[in-house]
Amino acid sequence: MIDYAKAADKLPADKIKPLERMFYPSSIAIVGASSSVAETGWVKRLLDFGYKGIIYPINPKVKEIQGLKAYPNICDAPDPVDYAILNIPARAAPQALRDCVAKGVKFVHCYSAGFGEEGTPEGKRLESEIVRISTGTGTRLLGPNCMGIYCPESGMTFSEDFPKAEGRIAVVSQSGAEASRLVLLCRDVNLYCSKVISYGNAADLDAPDFLEYLAHDQKTDIIAVYVEGVRDGPAFVSAVRKGRVKKPVIIMRAGTTENGARTALYHTSSITRPEENWDAFFKQTGAIPALTTDETADIIQALSRIRTMKGQRVAIIGRGGGIGVVATDICERAGLKVPPFSKETQAKLREIRPDAGAGLRNPVEPKLGMEGATEFYLRGLPIIDMDTETDIILIQMAVDIYGGGDADLKQTLTESAYALCAASDSIRKPLAVALFTGGRAETVLAAAAARDILTKAGIAVFPGVESAARAISKITNSDIQVLNLKK
Amino acid sequence: MIDYAKAADKLPADKIKPLERMFYPSSIAIVGASSSVAETGWVKRLLDFGYKGIIYPINPKVKEIQGLKAYPNICDAPDPVDYAILNIPARAAPQALRDCVAKGVKFVHCYSAGFGEEGTPEGKRLESEIVRISTGTGTRLLGPNCMGIYCPESGMTFSEDFPKAEGRIAVVSQSGAEASRLVLLCRDVNLYCSKVISYGNAADLDAPDFLEYLAHDQKTDIIAVYVEGVRDGPAFVSAVRKGRVKKPVIIMRAGTTENGARTALYHTSSITRPEENWDAFFKQTGAIPALTTDETADIIQALSRIRTMKGQRVAIIGRGGGIGVVATDICERAGLKVPPFSKETQAKLREIRPDAGAGLRNPVEPKLGMEGATEFYLRGLPIIDMDTETDIILIQMAVDIYGGGDADLKQTLTESAYALCAASDSIRKPLAVALFTGGRAETVLAAAAARDILTKAGIAVFPGVESAARAISKITNSDIQVLNLKK
Repeated sequence: MIDYAKAADKLPADKIKPLERMFYPSSIAIVGASSSVAETGWVKRLLDFGYKGIIYPINPKVKEIQGLKAYPNICDAPDPVDYAILNIPARAAPQALRDCVAKGVKFVHCYSAGFGEEGTPEGKRLESEIVRISTGTGTRLLGPNCMGIYCPESGMTFSEDFPKAEGRIAVVSQSGAEASRLVLLCRDVNLYCSKVISYGNAADLDAPDFLEYLAHDQKTDIIAVYVEGVRDGPAFVSAVRKGRVKKPVIIMRAGTTENGARTALYHTSSITRPEENWDAFFKQTGAIPALTTDETADIIQALSRIRTMKGQRVAIIGRGGGIGVVATDICERAGLKVPPFSKETQAKLREIRPDAGAGLRNPVEPKLGMEGATEFYLRGLPIIDMDTETDIILIQMAVDIYGGGDADLKQTLTESAYALCAASDSIRKPLAVALFTGGRAETVLAAAAARDILTKAGIAVFPGVESAARAISKITNSDIQVLNLKK
Repeated sequence: MIDYAKAADKLPADKIKPLERMFYPSSIAIVGASSSVAETGWVKRLLDFGYKGIIYPINPKVKEIQGLKAYPNICDAPDPVDYAILNIPARAAPQALRDCVAKGVKFVHCYSAGFGEEGTPEGKRLESEIVRISTGTGTRLLGPNCMGIYCPESGMTFSEDFPKAEGRIAVVSQSGAEASRLVLLCRDVNLYCSKVISYGNAADLDAPDFLEYLAHDQKTDIIAVYVEGVRDGPAFVSAVRKGRVKKPVIIMRAGTTENGARTALYHTSSITRPEENWDAFFKQTGAIPALTTDETADIIQALSRIRTMKGQRVAIIGRGGGIGVVATDICERAGLKVPPFSKETQAKLREIRPDAGAGLRNPVEPKLGMEGATEFYLRGLPIIDMDTETDIILIQMAVDIYGGGDADLKQTLTESAYALCAASDSIRKPLAVALFTGGRAETVLAAAAARDILTKAGIAVFPGVESAARAISKITNSDIQVLNLKK
């Protein structure tokens, strides 16, 4: 949502180059490449996903994997290796890493688990050992206990379910599963990623390294971080602050509760921070706080699709009555305002909705049914757009109250979505849609089609008023908005 | 969830009889019955829904509506009328009501809007007038500006989308649309209603009247109230307190924010109460507070399906790693606890999941994929059930992280749901499922099928860990649970 063009600077080449080959390796070795035909291993995953570089399967027991020549040891690979994935038991990692160092591998992604997160002396010892082996060499370590890199541009992925489409969102996550959820939640609303890093225990490379790279990455507009522990607090704060100057940084912190901290300790051996430390952190850095992956996805969408707001006053369009009262309450509880429209706006609305009664003051109620909504998008939206008392338009598509009994629901909802897309082109106010569907399969499918139409047209669609209001409030309360207002 | 049998008393006949005919009228007159064939009017709606009593369409312009003889005036109806619906402009309501009083109609549902909620002198005058006309007569007034009654047992409804199935949930709502959302959200998880009252401006009959009836209603187990304004505060508090002794009462209050209050004023001409007044109310009454319809539906499900808990300690089963950390945080933030399992439980879990590493402590992680979950429900659930450190089992079905790319997702998820149903039969701990799907149509459909299987088997299924934790916390923090614990 921000025009970062002005803030963008020249790439300080010496700063960025270090991690470039982690995202764009010209060759990848899989140490412990699976020779099983049944399961999807790293080799097949990379081939299927379209990685264009050279793949070296390393496996002393076979000659060929997925049609590629296999090598007994990484040192036997005929050419230099930029990136190696260790797909071997933790106890075998030190020797494999030594081989990688000897080979001059730039980045070693230690996929294996069984290190510090085990909480055992042996696990801790192994983690110290791999750090010791790589320290001071030209080899940097990613992980251990992590999924590694997803970069659709270079064809790297850690899941065959990820989209091949490139986008402008970067994810830095200690958790591979949370990163995956975020990638897929974004995909569901037609938003895609530039680079995703699952970095696990962060024994060597850590969030500050990735943040520094991504802050300067021309392919990235928004950075979302999932973090359990911060090894070097001052470096993290500094990296987030520097990143924040270039682009929005969302921080989802985990392990901030008593047993959340206990669980995180056994997940990535992280020492988490209590909630009050995070409060200070957000004040210091200007990062946007998030508590769940769903909320992170909502904030990403708000940042990507909601234009700069002049204020926090919301115009609500949708079913009136109690639905309007509750939506108003939700917005105001989230820190937004839902003031009455100007007298002029109300008068103009009365012309097109003479029998709307009280439902013209904000929230405004279109005629009932999807056809009523469609008509209102075309005739009423331009009026709301001119209202002087509101800054952003929130459209409630409460599809669930139509019960799913309407055979034409999909068609009328699709028409409604197209009408909104058409109308939104000439609207100057930022716009968001809350599309809530209930659980009935027919309704959900109809709504999914509408959401697809809307999000492809660049309209932000949230699963409810609560999530929409929270995301809008987060982006308008953060100093990102303050920066915008100053422009 | 409570065994209210012990609390149930004999029906005090004099108290209850007054409203009996509102839900079970032997005849209904529609004043201003629509003669249009195209639109669904009240007559057709009642006929289609299966109302078995006599319907008198009142319309001076036609002889017949939907095959039924129409009468020019309600006084012309050949037999007594229990319930009349005024489907006429507000200005015509006083005369129609006078006719109803003359006819001796027991309940008049004033469907029409255009009264106090308009905020105009004329609207206020009309509302005072209809109150004056009915006061002191044998005719009670429902509304104005409301949808009236939905009672599947008697065949009354205000929406053709409502299920005909009878259930044990009563809804008392100033908003027809919010009541509709709640009915349909409940239906989506196979929960149904006994009686729903949309009562609008509450010019005569008000929440205390309905609460008194429903508290003694043998067909009702749970009462959910949506309220904007309370005309008679002490009567409301007293009715909720009395109701609460018999069965759980959920109160969703609306209009508690500045502009929420403004909007409510124009919705039902209600004077709302600020949030702090509600805090005192909940302490005084023991009602369960809710802020949104979705939350109300979640609490209803928790009350209906989660067995009495001995405490608030949650065992989480599902994807580990960051997903487990975040779920733990969410539960603890909601006021629940996620402590480590006993050493004994951990040892037993290690036998069936020898390579689970750290993922045995709570949260516990089944093998990956739906098959892993299925296997765990059968083998792991009985172990968790015996754990001494936890009181309730929360199962995370994070279907969205499977990306929807799996062609067999629907089948494996269905099998998994059946396995969980089978396993849950012999489990003594209460159980809840958080089933989250993302937005991909295939995933959503697969999840909808699984949810249907689970909820039909009486297992509570929530759309996410956040909603599950919130609902569980609400029912365990309320004195309903305290009452249970004392038993």
